[in-house]
Amino acid sequence: MTTQRQALVTGATRFIGLVGDPVSQVRSPDFYNPRLARVGANVVLIPLHVPADRFEATMPGLQQLGNLAGLLFTVPFKERAVAFADEILPVGLQVGAINAMRRNPDGHWISDIFDGIGLVRALEGMGVTLTGQRALLLGAGGAGRAIALSLARAGVRGLTLFDLDAVRVSRLTADIAHFYPACAVATPRIVAANGHDVVVNATPVGMAPGDGLPTPLGLLDPACVVFDIVPKPDVTPLMQYATEAGCRVGGGQLMIDGQADAVLDFLGFGT
Amino acid sequence: MTTQRQALVTGATRFIGLVGDPVSQVRSPDFYNPRLARVGANVVLIPLHVPADRFEATMPGLQQLGNLAGLLFTVPFKERAVAFADEILPVGLQVGAINAMRRNPDGHWISDIFDGIGLVRALEGMGVTLTGQRALLLGAGGAGRAIALSLARAGVRGLTLFDLDAVRVSRLTADIAHFYPACAVATPRIVAANGHDVVVNATPVGMAPGDGLPTPLGLLDPACVVFDIVPKPDVTPLMQYATEAGCRVGGGQLMIDGQADAVLDFLGFGT
Repeated sequence: MTTQRQALVTGATRFIGLVGDPVSQVRSPDFYNPRLARVGANVVLIPLHVPADRFEATMPGLQQLGNLAGLLFTVPFKERAVAFADEILPVGLQVGAINAMRRNPDGHWISDIFDGIGLVRALEGMGVTLTGQRALLLGAGGAGRAIALSLARAGVRGLTLFDLDAVRVSRLTADIAHFYPACAVATPRIVAANGHDVVVNATPVGMAPGDGLPTPLGLLDPACVVFDIVPKPDVTPLMQYATEAGCRVGGGQLMIDGQADAVLDFLGFGT
Repeated sequence: MTTQRQALVTGATRFIGLVGDPVSQVRSPDFYNPRLARVGANVVLIPLHVPADRFEATMPGLQQLGNLAGLLFTVPFKERAVAFADEILPVGLQVGAINAMRRNPDGHWISDIFDGIGLVRALEGMGVTLTGQRALLLGAGGAGRAIALSLARAGVRGLTLFDLDAVRVSRLTADIAHFYPACAVATPRIVAANGHDVVVNATPVGMAPGDGLPTPLGLLDPACVVFDIVPKPDVTPLMQYATEAGCRVGGGQLMIDGQADAVLDFLGFGT
C-alpha cells in the first residue's frame, strides 16, 4: 500500500478553499492533502485565486457552497476576511486577523488565526514548556504579531519585541498589555539574546541569499532554544549561528507542520 | 508508470467547477480527471454544491476566481446558467440551456451545451454518418431537446419526436422548424421504428429495475442503429431488444465519453 498524496475527487468530495492573491506559489496542498488522505477524509484543499480587488465581491458566493469544508486565507486577505466571519475565536480577535474559517451546523462561520499556535505547537514538539519563560521575538509584522499573542497566551512571563517599525511595536505592546497583563513586554532599541529562554525570528531575514542575522544578538546561551520561521533555506544564518552556540534549533517547516495540524483540528479533520 | 487518475493539486493548479444541487451522485470526476491528467493539464474537476435557491447569489463570486479553468452545470442549473454567460454559442442558444462555460482572455464568459453533441460524437464513433438520415427520438425533455437540435444540426433529414408531454413536443418541433427548416419533423401519437435509420432513447425509461421499452417500437430493421442514453444498467431493455433484432447498439457511457471529449475540447484541454 502506497501513501496517498490526496483524496480521489468524487461527487461526494468536499473541499477546503485556500484564498489568496497570488496563490501559485503556495505549498499548502503539499502539507494538507496528504494529512487529509491519511485520516480518510474525502476532502481536498484547492487554492482559489481571488484577485485582491475582488475579494469582497467573491466571498459571499464562496460561503454559499454546500460542499465547502472550510476556507483558509493567505496574503493579502487575513485582515479583510474578518468581515466575513460570524464569530471570531479569542486569538483571532486579539490579532485582528484570521487564516481559517469553518461553518458550524447552524450555518455560522467561525474563524481563528493559527499562525502563532503553529509556532507554539512546534516549540512544544521540541520539548519546550513555555509557561514562565522569557522570549525574544524579532519581527512584529503579521506573523510576529500572531506569534507574540500566542506566546503570551501560552504563558511566557516576559516578551522582548524588536522591529524596525516603531508603530507595529507600540501597537503590539499595547495589545499584549491589554490582553495578557501578566506578560511583561520590553522593547529595547538594541537586543541581546542573553537572558532569554527562547529566541524566535519572525522577520523574513534569512530567506534571501547573502542574508545574515536579523539583528546582532550577542552571545547565545546553549540552554536557549532558537526558532526561525523562515521556511527556506532549511538552515538559515540564525539557525547556523545557534547551532554553533550549542542551542536547540527549530525551523519554518516545523511551524508549518504545527499550523497544519492545528488548522485541521479546527476544521474537524484532526488525527 | 501507472495511469494517473487526477493531477496532484499544487499552488498552480487550476480547477473546473461542476455546479449542481445535489452533486454527491455525479460521476463526472471519474470521466474528466483522468482525461485532464492524460493531457498533462494541471487542472482538477471539483464538484461545487450550490443550493438551488442560492445559485444567483453564488455565481458572480465563482466567476471572479482567477484560477477557475471553466464551469460545468448540471441539474437544476442548465437554464439558469444562461444569465451568467456573456456569449452563448449557437446550439446553447437554440436549446436555451448551457452546461459548460469558459473564460476568454478578454474576461468574457463563453458558453454552450454539449448534451447533444455528446450523442452525435458517440454515433460517429460507431461509424454512423448522420447526414441525410432519418432519426426517431424518444423523449423531448432537457436531454432530448439538446439531442434533437444536435441531430438536426448534424444533418438528419427527418426527425420523429415522441414524448408524453405535448407542450415539450410542440415547442421543440417549432424550434427545429425555425432553426433547421430542412429537417422534417413528425410527431405521431404511436411510433414505429420501421423507416428510421437511427433510434435514440432520451427518456429515463430503462434505468429502473423492471422497466421495459420506453414505448412499443414494432419491428426493428437490423440496419437500424439503436442508442440508449440511460447510463445504467450497461444493457437496458431497449438495448437488449435491439441486439436481439441484430442492430448495432450504443449506450449511455459512450455518450458520456463523447460529451467529456467535446467539453474538454471547448475548455481547451482536448487531446
